[in-house]
Amino acid sequence: MTIEGRREEHRPGRIRLGMVGGGKGAFIGAVHRIASRIDDQFELVAGALSSDPDRAKASALEIGLAADRAYGSYEEMAKAEALRPDGIEAVSIVTPNHMHAPVARAFLEAGIHVICDKPMTTTVTDAQDLVDLVGRTGAIFCLTHNYTGYPMVRQARAMVVAGELGAIRVVQAEYPQDWLTTRAELAGSKQAEWRTDPQRSGAGGSIGDLGTHAYNLAAFVTGLETDQLLAQLSTFVAGRQLDDDVQILLRYKGGARGMLWASQVAVGNENGLKFRVYGTDAGLEWSQADPNYLWFTRFGEPKQLLTRGGAAVRPEAGRVTRVPSGHPEGYLEGFATIYAEAARAIRAAREGRKPDSEVLYPTVEDGLAGMQFIDAAVRSSANGNVWTKVA
Amino acid sequence: MTIEGRREEHRPGRIRLGMVGGGKGAFIGAVHRIASRIDDQFELVAGALSSDPDRAKASALEIGLAADRAYGSYEEMAKAEALRPDGIEAVSIVTPNHMHAPVARAFLEAGIHVICDKPMTTTVTDAQDLVDLVGRTGAIFCLTHNYTGYPMVRQARAMVVAGELGAIRVVQAEYPQDWLTTRAELAGSKQAEWRTDPQRSGAGGSIGDLGTHAYNLAAFVTGLETDQLLAQLSTFVAGRQLDDDVQILLRYKGGARGMLWASQVAVGNENGLKFRVYGTDAGLEWSQADPNYLWFTRFGEPKQLLTRGGAAVRPEAGRVTRVPSGHPEGYLEGFATIYAEAARAIRAAREGRKPDSEVLYPTVEDGLAGMQFIDAAVRSSANGNVWTKVA
Amino acid sequence: MTIEGRREEHRPGRIRLGMVGGGKGAFIGAVHRIASRIDDQFELVAGALSSDPDRAKASALEIGLAADRAYGSYEEMAKAEALRPDGIEAVSIVTPNHMHAPVARAFLEAGIHVICDKPMTTTVTDAQDLVDLVGRTGAIFCLTHNYTGYPMVRQARAMVVAGELGAIRVVQAEYPQDWLTTRAELAGSKQAEWRTDPQRSGAGGSIGDLGTHAYNLAAFVTGLETDQLLAQLSTFVAGRQLDDDVQILLRYKGGARGMLWASQVAVGNENGLKFRVYGTDAGLEWSQADPNYLWFTRFGEPKQLLTRGGAAVRPEAGRVTRVPSGHPEGYLEGFATIYAEAARAIRAAREGRKPDSEVLYPTVEDGLAGMQFIDAAVRSSANGNVWTKVA
Amino acid sequence: MTIEGRREEHRPGRIRLGMVGGGKGAFIGAVHRIASRIDDQFELVAGALSSDPDRAKASALEIGLAADRAYGSYEEMAKAEALRPDGIEAVSIVTPNHMHAPVARAFLEAGIHVICDKPMTTTVTDAQDLVDLVGRTGAIFCLTHNYTGYPMVRQARAMVVAGELGAIRVVQAEYPQDWLTTRAELAGSKQAEWRTDPQRSGAGGSIGDLGTHAYNLAAFVTGLETDQLLAQLSTFVAGRQLDDDVQILLRYKGGARGMLWASQVAVGNENGLKFRVYGTDAGLEWSQADPNYLWFTRFGEPKQLLTRGGAAVRPEAGRVTRVPSGHPEGYLEGFATIYAEAARAIRAAREGRKPDSEVLYPTVEDGLAGMQFIDAAVRSSANGNVWTKVA
Repeated sequence: MTIEGRREEHRPGRIRLGMVGGGKGAFIGAVHRIASRIDDQFELVAGALSSDPDRAKASALEIGLAADRAYGSYEEMAKAEALRPDGIEAVSIVTPNHMHAPVARAFLEAGIHVICDKPMTTTVTDAQDLVDLVGRTGAIFCLTHNYTGYPMVRQARAMVVAGELGAIRVVQAEYPQDWLTTRAELAGSKQAEWRTDPQRSGAGGSIGDLGTHAYNLAAFVTGLETDQLLAQLSTFVAGRQLDDDVQILLRYKGGARGMLWASQVAVGNENGLKFRVYGTDAGLEWSQADPNYLWFTRFGEPKQLLTRGGAAVRPEAGRVTRVPSGHPEGYLEGFATIYAEAARAIRAAREGRKPDSEVLYPTVEDGLAGMQFIDAAVRSSANGNVWTKVA
Repeated sequence: MTIEGRREEHRPGRIRLGMVGGGKGAFIGAVHRIASRIDDQFELVAGALSSDPDRAKASALEIGLAADRAYGSYEEMAKAEALRPDGIEAVSIVTPNHMHAPVARAFLEAGIHVICDKPMTTTVTDAQDLVDLVGRTGAIFCLTHNYTGYPMVRQARAMVVAGELGAIRVVQAEYPQDWLTTRAELAGSKQAEWRTDPQRSGAGGSIGDLGTHAYNLAAFVTGLETDQLLAQLSTFVAGRQLDDDVQILLRYKGGARGMLWASQVAVGNENGLKFRVYGTDAGLEWSQADPNYLWFTRFGEPKQLLTRGGAAVRPEAGRVTRVPSGHPEGYLEGFATIYAEAARAIRAAREGRKPDSEVLYPTVEDGLAGMQFIDAAVRSSANGNVWTKVA
Repeated sequence: MTIEGRREEHRPGRIRLGMVGGGKGAFIGAVHRIASRIDDQFELVAGALSSDPDRAKASALEIGLAADRAYGSYEEMAKAEALRPDGIEAVSIVTPNHMHAPVARAFLEAGIHVICDKPMTTTVTDAQDLVDLVGRTGAIFCLTHNYTGYPMVRQARAMVVAGELGAIRVVQAEYPQDWLTTRAELAGSKQAEWRTDPQRSGAGGSIGDLGTHAYNLAAFVTGLETDQLLAQLSTFVAGRQLDDDVQILLRYKGGARGMLWASQVAVGNENGLKFRVYGTDAGLEWSQADPNYLWFTRFGEPKQLLTRGGAAVRPEAGRVTRVPSGHPEGYLEGFATIYAEAARAIRAAREGRKPDSEVLYPTVEDGLAGMQFIDAAVRSSANGNVWTKVA
Repeated sequence: MTIEGRREEHRPGRIRLGMVGGGKGAFIGAVHRIASRIDDQFELVAGALSSDPDRAKASALEIGLAADRAYGSYEEMAKAEALRPDGIEAVSIVTPNHMHAPVARAFLEAGIHVICDKPMTTTVTDAQDLVDLVGRTGAIFCLTHNYTGYPMVRQARAMVVAGELGAIRVVQAEYPQDWLTTRAELAGSKQAEWRTDPQRSGAGGSIGDLGTHAYNLAAFVTGLETDQLLAQLSTFVAGRQLDDDVQILLRYKGGARGMLWASQVAVGNENGLKFRVYGTDAGLEWSQADPNYLWFTRFGEPKQLLTRGGAAVRPEAGRVTRVPSGHPEGYLEGFATIYAEAARAIRAAREGRKPDSEVLYPTVEDGLAGMQFIDAAVRSSANGNVWTKVA
């Protein structure tokens, strides 16, 4: 029941947190709030939970925020909180994609750290601007590519880093879902509405919502950089404006080759994020639906089923593990790990030092890379599915 | 992405919570604390976290409790908190088994609700006394048979109640682990020490630690009551005082038959709690290691893999579901549901009303049933593995 | 693509084979015929395929037997074949259970080797008589406990023999099916009719049809001998004469403990034969539905998924493997291995020598052990589910 | 235990079969021989089992062929057998790829039916010539795309035909292996030698050996025709002449999109042939390693695990099923089904009639389609991974 590298449980003095977006009817806001509570590192004290001021305030009161910190707009909130002695130290941005950049800018300029949902922006230019702004302000910017918080994803990365796979040859990444198989955006689903609307989502549909996760995860685990890609974006549901399926070939620098598939119309797939990585010496396979397992095979040896908290777990995975092996941790715990890592970085910033070297969270540069990926894929597809340089 | 019966997320006004046990080196205390935070219904404000006063106070400060509510003993804490206007409304008891009863008594008598780890006591007499005391005081007593908090366990129970299985014929329940395959209690594992010590665990080893969970779960899902059992307790590791494997036959009232196996020496099993239930019309199978799935087969039809939050989920499961299908929830979320249910009961008590009928948590009577099960099994085994009435 | 210990493919000079039972409407006869052909060691040349002479002859012609060797009764066949210079060397007995013993006696006394379906007889006395007769005649007697022919079952046994598990502590064996959930015997199923009829099946229903397989498999893999058992036989379907579910506790000689469950009413289970074996050093798990896999865990190490023909396969498994790893072998191949082993024994007998030491098939003594198991279980249950000596 | 559409077991009068290739050290020859025996429709009576005359004869005697039909060359065999009154009716061609075409021509011109391994030829021209020759002679030509013989593959196809998936949108096909992760062709593996040698394999490595299977299977199940493809062939193992990994995007006629991956260097994959097909109404998933299962999900309904011989099986699957559900059938049985279908076609030809409409086997046209696929992929890759018309 002991776990190598097991993390410290707690440190007093919670970080004061605000939230933009995530009011009534939203899905991801509640996820962020739970994630922020799990390790007891944050206290949510302020919010501008909707672009509609009345709805924003009502939502805030409903979740127990004080009336004077239930803001009607994010601009107001950034200004007011920056002036309070007990103002928020960090803000979570959980709006539709098109609002990420302006909100992030407002808080970064107010000297407040940012935890932001992905994809980071809707354009590469906006993404580059945020990179610059973060560089200038020195603030912590954490992008919630939450799947990198799963212990067995950390394990996979650590095994690659340790050389257990040898040189990587082939990467297979995929993220099929099926919830947009029919035209849900006309059937009253708020989620479906904005995620299929180019005004709010940006130029990518499934590629932005799902493809970036798969792409980021593959990069996180393998450390490979993409040279070129060739993308085939499809819109299968008539009348939809954005892609609901994307099929991509990848040429990584150094010679590795990859395939990436994301879909919102693959019937029978709920949330099928998966990666498979094959090197000269060994292979790894992981599936988000069963995140406590990692398949590992050394060439010529029996397959091993590595388990979270189990034998062979490396400290990089053990330190983000909360309960012993066999007691599954899930999506919220993985998400919470991103928050916990952000907290470690924010505490270090409080103390004017760098975070410990093992602290790991998706950065503003990862956000830029994601936008460059979407941009290259959209251009490749628009030009007839041709090879296109990334970045 | 909508879930039938989806629960309300939040209600302001957290319940003030204390904790007894769960200091440094403990495992389950941290689990309770996370579980209490996930749905934001409780605020931990006081603790007597160890039987050693110094350790108790240090542990309390470490997790951020105020110094004046970092108590050296549970007696002191019960007294002091009962007198405070902002005193705790509920206490979590996460000590070794032998302390559950005295601690619970102290807080119940102080008018404080109790959330208590299982098995409830170390003797049937103590368990009966607690039942009486809860009856007298009218307090909420919630036993953390946490596995009943998993959505797909709720789903299974709801399907049985709805008659989807017909009359139940056969129950297979099991809970194998392997962590006590060797004599860990001599190798410095605090967990192994008290769990194999009859002074602190009571008369049951694997049957108390694991068997009661499997037994409770089978009863929760099927609603069946046990008539008789026949148990074969074994101690495979030389020098150990309590059983580390137990094999049981069950005769349920009404004619159903069952088998129950629990083990601490089944190499390759991390936390293999599982139930399978077969009725005249259909069968169900569930495994704790993969808790988001429930196998369901109607006789003569294809097997169905029901998923948490997915198609065919009943409101009883939907209301304890936090994230959409395909994003796995785990052990901590299931545990948190028990806390959330206790919170609903406590809030109702605050308001002088009964909790809503759908609120479901393991009660003091379930605790008594667990002790009667252990007692009958130990007697059956001591008498040569013979049939023994339960209760 | 090479397999350690890979078997020789072929040797010319097929063994002349007859068959009793297995005419139109039978299930297992066709299985035996395919199994006898797979490795090209037998040529079916004679048959008495039904107890009804006309049906017997028609069935024989239909499968291509010569008219003069399409017999109306097994007695006639035994006599006639014994006299032919090209008479059969071996006979397959695939009748309902009550005919196994008389048919086997007739052919053994005619100097013909016997391949016989299980359970071997309907009484312990008959089984003992067959043991004696085989001893007197020196004939080969092969009982088709076909599941012992699966390569990964051979692998499991070889690992136990090699000491990889250490001393065995716990055995879990089960064989659930669901096809008799309703009263199929009244709905025109010939299979269901005789298998639920004590006149043709003997005193055991599910215990004879399924329980003996699980019992035999556990013994085959572990090498353990049973001291006592306690059985709870149930008949859940009203009006049925034999048990359709059986739950058993086992005390093995040497201190290991076991549980065995067989059922014909476990809805959702097609043919769920499974064993799990746990020793002081390691554990093994195997399921017949997925027979090309064997889970193996050394204590404190990651779980391994051993595959048929894959890494870590021992010669004992490799020699009964036909195709490389990843190309699944199934039920018929396992069955064929029993035939191939019998062929090796029969060829050795032809040449007046002992079969090679690695040749392994279930013997008449295994058949006796199976009958003693059924008998003890029926007595245990009849006496109120009490502990009963086996043999 | 009854299976809808269950096939007839047997019909007397075996078809006289010859074999070219498949002598000592070969792998696939033994597979063909077992497959030809399982359903008792063929009798192997002649062979030219090696290109080396001495080895050819010795191999033939070893497997029990008569000395006068143990030929030193296929030319000799074709001539001699055509003249015998009891000459072979069909020949199995199991040589390396480059010999398929000349051998097939020789036997077709001798009026003998052909069962031929895949890929059919090494060039599109040869493939077209065979198509023409088969057209002229009217002979049966059966290509052993054996995976189309699995019952659950037949089930998948039948479900698509019946419209259960609606219009197909996305196809995912893959066939990873790992046995060529290192340079096995230099380590004495005969299999590796010819499969990596362009002289004997043709222009495709992994694409010919594996890719064609995946491609054929996707076409078999979906009925879709390919318009264009874009292929990225890689040779990861230094010094190897042919591709050992291939990644392909597919544009089907009618708008469906596909991805296809085949690899010989994906460590941990033994024989991972798999297809996933998604339509407007439902999705299907099948994996060759576990061939008795087919996952089926109607949009908005629970996932179903369809099983071979189980509930919901269609007659198209039932008729090629030999044993009841839960008793797994494997690779050899699937292969045997191709032989059984060929036998039905050959018997029909004997009788001067067309085979029954349900008889289904891969034809010479399928062989041509496979060669066009390889050719297009090789050209696409050679031209810089560009979109290329197929055929």
